[in-house]
Amino acid sequence: MVGWGVVERRGGGLLHVAHGVLRLDASASLELRLVELFARLSETLVRHAPVAVAVEGVFTFKNARSALVLGHARGVALLVAARAGVPVFEYAPAMVKRAVGTGGAAAKEAVARAVTAFLGLEGAPRADATDALAVAVCHLHREGSPFQRKQGRRAPDLSERLRPAVIRPANGVRSGA
Amino acid sequence: MVGWGVVERRGGGLLHVAHGVLRLDASASLELRLVELFARLSETLVRHAPVAVAVEGVFTFKNARSALVLGHARGVALLVAARAGVPVFEYAPAMVKRAVGTGGAAAKEAVARAVTAFLGLEGAPRADATDALAVAVCHLHREGSPFQRKQGRRAPDLSERLRPAVIRPANGVRSGA
Repeated sequence: MVGWGVVERRGGGLLHVAHGVLRLDASASLELRLVELFARLSETLVRHAPVAVAVEGVFTFKNARSALVLGHARGVALLVAARAGVPVFEYAPAMVKRAVGTGGAAAKEAVARAVTAFLGLEGAPRADATDALAVAVCHLHREGSPFQRKQGRRAPDLSERLRPAVIRPANGVRSGA
Repeated sequence: MVGWGVVERRGGGLLHVAHGVLRLDASASLELRLVELFARLSETLVRHAPVAVAVEGVFTFKNARSALVLGHARGVALLVAARAGVPVFEYAPAMVKRAVGTGGAAAKEAVARAVTAFLGLEGAPRADATDALAVAVCHLHREGSPFQRKQGRRAPDLSERLRPAVIRPANGVRSGA
């Protein structure tokens, strides 16, 4: 289950563009799931043409085995963004949580509620998607104008969960436009 | 540093075809290194057109952080094989070591010497490459005739090191031929 979200800066605020959850075929082998992830993330990236991708950093681990398995999927996600020439940013979980107005140690449900309210979403998106949207909001809060890489740590080396956040820039300017 | 090796069954024996070590640009960001890995492994796969790819399984971890970082690269390696339609197999480290005639707990150097002697290699290839060749030898020892998937565990979920072993089949038959 891989959540993603697209947020755009519009005027003085942030506009929700799209979000989703990729459900991979659990009965398929790991390598075939990676192929599916690669294809579907690539398709999402092409459709939304973000100028930046942000992911959450990882500083706590359940265990080494789950860290390894997560790494497989995260490697593919970073590959998809980098192959498309889209810069990748990483933010610490506490920073992401604060960006949507919760405490840095807020529970997943609190973050989901905060993101839903902040972006005026209808219904109750899955937490995997609201997590991704929160990372996108965090990036847009922290990036200066013009785009300042140093505010996000480039070259992410670690991540707790795979939550690529696809981000659209101010005024709908697209990568390469 | 990613080692790879190609071994082919020829007559009653195994023939060393090629091996190498991919040195990635250590000064590049993680995501750009993954792009480089993707491109170079893809190129290697196209050049040697193996009918199977085998990797070593992982059952011990130095720590969760290194497991996560390894996972990024391993995910990309598995993706490259699976996108090319090449089946992927995984073997336990002890099984790989025994396949080249050392004990299941042999040190890396002993495995390197055993592989070098077994395949009649000249010089002293880097251990990353001999590790990969050992996995290829293990696969060819264990696969029946015809190709029996059940002897290798499909859908690898874990790996200690990234050591894709590119394998060529008996009599030079190639995938799709």
